[in-house]
Amino acid sequence: MLFRIDLEPVGRRGSCTSDASLLEAARQLGVDQVSLCGGKGTCGRCKLQVLTGRVSGATPSERKALSSRELEAGYRLACQVYPLSDVKLFVPPESLSTPQRTQVEGQEIAVAPDALVRGYGVRLPPPSLEDLTADAERVTRALEQQHGVPCSAVDLDVLRAVSPHLRSWNWHALLSLREGECIALHSPSTQQLGLAVDLGTTKVAGYLMDLYSGRTLASMGLMNPQIAYGEDVITRIQRALESHSESEGMQKLALQAVTELATGLCAEADAIPNDIVDAVVVGNTAMHHLLLGLPVQQLVLAPYVPAVSSALDIKARDMGLHIAAGAYVHLLPNIAGYVGADHVAMILATRVWNADTVVLALDIGTNTEICLSNHGRMTSVSCASGPAFEGAHIKHGMRAAAGAIENLRLVDEGVEYHTVAGAPPAGLCGSGILDALAQLCLHGVVDMTGRIGQHPRVREHDGQREFVLLGEADRDGRPAITITQKDVRELQLAKGAIRTGIQALLEADGLSDDNIDEVIIAGAFGSYIDVSSAIAIGMLPSLPLEHFRQVGNAAGTGARLALISREQRARAADVAQRVRYIELASVPNFQELFSRSMCLGE
Amino acid sequence: MLFRIDLEPVGRRGSCTSDASLLEAARQLGVDQVSLCGGKGTCGRCKLQVLTGRVSGATPSERKALSSRELEAGYRLACQVYPLSDVKLFVPPESLSTPQRTQVEGQEIAVAPDALVRGYGVRLPPPSLEDLTADAERVTRALEQQHGVPCSAVDLDVLRAVSPHLRSWNWHALLSLREGECIALHSPSTQQLGLAVDLGTTKVAGYLMDLYSGRTLASMGLMNPQIAYGEDVITRIQRALESHSESEGMQKLALQAVTELATGLCAEADAIPNDIVDAVVVGNTAMHHLLLGLPVQQLVLAPYVPAVSSALDIKARDMGLHIAAGAYVHLLPNIAGYVGADHVAMILATRVWNADTVVLALDIGTNTEICLSNHGRMTSVSCASGPAFEGAHIKHGMRAAAGAIENLRLVDEGVEYHTVAGAPPAGLCGSGILDALAQLCLHGVVDMTGRIGQHPRVREHDGQREFVLLGEADRDGRPAITITQKDVRELQLAKGAIRTGIQALLEADGLSDDNIDEVIIAGAFGSYIDVSSAIAIGMLPSLPLEHFRQVGNAAGTGARLALISREQRARAADVAQRVRYIELASVPNFQELFSRSMCLGE
Repeated sequence: MLFRIDLEPVGRRGSCTSDASLLEAARQLGVDQVSLCGGKGTCGRCKLQVLTGRVSGATPSERKALSSRELEAGYRLACQVYPLSDVKLFVPPESLSTPQRTQVEGQEIAVAPDALVRGYGVRLPPPSLEDLTADAERVTRALEQQHGVPCSAVDLDVLRAVSPHLRSWNWHALLSLREGECIALHSPSTQQLGLAVDLGTTKVAGYLMDLYSGRTLASMGLMNPQIAYGEDVITRIQRALESHSESEGMQKLALQAVTELATGLCAEADAIPNDIVDAVVVGNTAMHHLLLGLPVQQLVLAPYVPAVSSALDIKARDMGLHIAAGAYVHLLPNIAGYVGADHVAMILATRVWNADTVVLALDIGTNTEICLSNHGRMTSVSCASGPAFEGAHIKHGMRAAAGAIENLRLVDEGVEYHTVAGAPPAGLCGSGILDALAQLCLHGVVDMTGRIGQHPRVREHDGQREFVLLGEADRDGRPAITITQKDVRELQLAKGAIRTGIQALLEADGLSDDNIDEVIIAGAFGSYIDVSSAIAIGMLPSLPLEHFRQVGNAAGTGARLALISREQRARAADVAQRVRYIELASVPNFQELFSRSMCLGE
Repeated sequence: MLFRIDLEPVGRRGSCTSDASLLEAARQLGVDQVSLCGGKGTCGRCKLQVLTGRVSGATPSERKALSSRELEAGYRLACQVYPLSDVKLFVPPESLSTPQRTQVEGQEIAVAPDALVRGYGVRLPPPSLEDLTADAERVTRALEQQHGVPCSAVDLDVLRAVSPHLRSWNWHALLSLREGECIALHSPSTQQLGLAVDLGTTKVAGYLMDLYSGRTLASMGLMNPQIAYGEDVITRIQRALESHSESEGMQKLALQAVTELATGLCAEADAIPNDIVDAVVVGNTAMHHLLLGLPVQQLVLAPYVPAVSSALDIKARDMGLHIAAGAYVHLLPNIAGYVGADHVAMILATRVWNADTVVLALDIGTNTEICLSNHGRMTSVSCASGPAFEGAHIKHGMRAAAGAIENLRLVDEGVEYHTVAGAPPAGLCGSGILDALAQLCLHGVVDMTGRIGQHPRVREHDGQREFVLLGEADRDGRPAITITQKDVRELQLAKGAIRTGIQALLEADGLSDDNIDEVIIAGAFGSYIDVSSAIAIGMLPSLPLEHFRQVGNAAGTGARLALISREQRARAADVAQRVRYIELASVPNFQELFSRSMCLGE
């Protein structure tokens, strides 16, 4: 029998047959769910929720893998379920393969749209000997008369086109107003679009929004082209300090990324960058400064202060960005040299500023920023966690591209794993690396100090010990995929840095792990990890899993909130003021904290 | 005997002997007074006022040439007076030779300085682990703490240098604030300078001001380099419409003139353009639009409206002008397509907005703008008077350079004249041309219709009649200097246009010449003419000479007022709103008015 199947929130629709499991049906439609056990119902990773339609009954494996609350809510394991009618399914982000999660994560925004920039349609009488009002004043007069809204200034680049535009549009136009300034003039049917950008050290994410409805029209991700200048912010700052042309080059690359997003997103939404009348950019302090061409030397000299921390409103043209004539780019405030606007955006998106419990929110990356909100009283730190969890400096690390092992576990028979797009394994992406380390800890292969011990799969190779995940034999003679002693040390440093940050925050408030009510994990890497693996190595506090929430690119969501809501934009400024910043290096017992945090499983 | 002599307002000092007249003494010091009669005491042009010191008694010629009120006030004819002690003399602009008048005219400003941009010195504590405030916020915090003044924004280009600047100036800086925005940061001892520019079609005048004291530090004039694109605004607009590169070229030339002024004026005042924290530019509507790159097509299509008429505040960098990092350029408002910001500036400088009588103020140029203030109720017109009075299209016309005849009169023996710098005569500058026409009218050589009649000095040459001012014999065989029939026609058109404008204004208010209490003549040409000549040809109303006031470059003075005084800047906006504009071509009896105004002596 042939049924219709509708997969949300990816929005994929198609047909399925009654003799294929929903896991197979989804895969045939190009929706790749995580499955480690290969459809045996034992790994419990291919969860989905049946929204409408009838399906086969729950199997014993499902009763074992799912809580009764989940079963009641319609949650099932896709590999165990067969359709009995047309079905509509919800695939939660955590059971999607990494690349697909990146596409859908965080597309919903839950605030009432109230954008700073508003569009007003105006119809004008043409000038005559009896009415010699100048063209610009003719527009502002109509705005006042037809909408009761005053306009105190018209941007120069709007003025530079006002006269021919009005005449070619037959005296009918759409005026974009921002705090009393006319920043754009369009033909009457143009949409009011906004651009939100999260400028990360490694990745750049962009969103095109309809400012009126608050809807996300398109989203897009790119690698930050500045990577050519170095992987981490310190290296890039040092390059920028070498010469003006180096820093200018980096500024141009950041701008190029934002421009590519604007162009690409508009193409997807059948618009042009000139229709973008407002933009919000968030990023860490270094990315923020490099994009704007601000000085960065003081970011690498103690006491590491930003050139500016307040929110900025910059004419897009002053940044070299070509969107609507007089549009501004709003940059959310920075908190400190290493706690930037992206952190503020995450706080905004996760609403921890308003927490009535104890909430820990962290964005794990090359630099990990952590905020502890103790009933809304916020303290933040920054930890130099390095790029190991992003696969850099790990022997078989790779991006979450086809063939990357994104999840794995050790079983008696060897290693069960899932690769991106089901392609033959080629390496490990971040979540796979974390799983690997966790499994080695749990199986006693690696001890608390990080030393790889004895195990049938451990071998000496190129002068160091390594754990063989997939041997040469498993790979038709190609080199083995392994975790080396050096890999473990890199990961230990990263884990240690993050755990130190968490401990410093807790101690500053006189709290311990047990006091934490919720842990929010944001960011590209953190959102796709297996939380229990992160707990197993001691990176995250050992709390029941339901205390954790993985929220995807919260910084991007925060940027979108600030784009479509004046209240949220003001809130961000307030948050930046309220957050207390702790410079980790100045914490009295920092050395002790750090060496304790280095221990695995601790 | 040797005495000290002090000549004001030119500020020239030196020695003189008791056997040289003050006319000779002044000339030896390089101060060139007008003298037609060659020191005989008959032409009455070399007036000056004795401020302090003793001089020889009044001669019969002086008693004839000067009124008793003038004699009481210490006015004398320089050619008749010999010093008896050290003397301090005031040489009124009208008795100075044209080039020297240009240097000194209108250097005094009589409003209390209260500039929009203010400088504040701040001393900052350097950042430390206990005080991690970002650099920009450190400055604004100090401003608030040390001066009680809030700062809501810091310009991007200021931010781009803030961190290295503060460190190199040892945490001590001068902040320039404009309406809550920090637009510049300088080392503590920098002056707060302002630039005022009158961008004329032919000439560009610039003034460098100390914003704190309101003093003019330097002034400078240039030819408008756009002249390469055409003499008058219509020609230039037509060129601009030919292609984008033409209009861009013209924009660049206007900008180049402003930049040259900024550089040249700063060099004179031992400063650099980066010290200029505010600027005001005035010009006619076409110059205004061409400088800003605004559309101009609608200026040459009925009903001739500007792209924008309100006052504008433009970031200098958006105009391409490099002064202080975040400085603005303020452009006074335009009134209509052919009554621009320079007219508003003239009204400001002459205070006719506040007149409690009937005042006519006019700025004579290629385009002549006239304002009638009837007890403060203002009406303005614009007349296309052409460049004849500037010497263009006149056979022997020339600029007021060495050798230009700037004043003349017909006497029985021939022609008495005075040339610029006393050089051998080479041609006629504007005031000389006007004098020549007036003399031809007064002596009946030219009749009311403009026809050159019979006279011993009239001859036929190159197919037209001409009046020989200086014959070939007077010039050692070089070509004669003449006024041709065609010259008279050109001047007649110019005179007719101006007179039509005056009549239209008077008729609109139901007034006639007799109702005018004061005539103010502004502008390069108008200020240096012999008013009685202008009356003789019927260009200006026939009123006693004491009703006329020649005020020099009033547009430049208005620009300076708006630069140093917020009240004056606001006043300009109010003036532009209040002025009623009459489109001359739409006046019902325009044709009749114009043909009547064409008559000479009428």
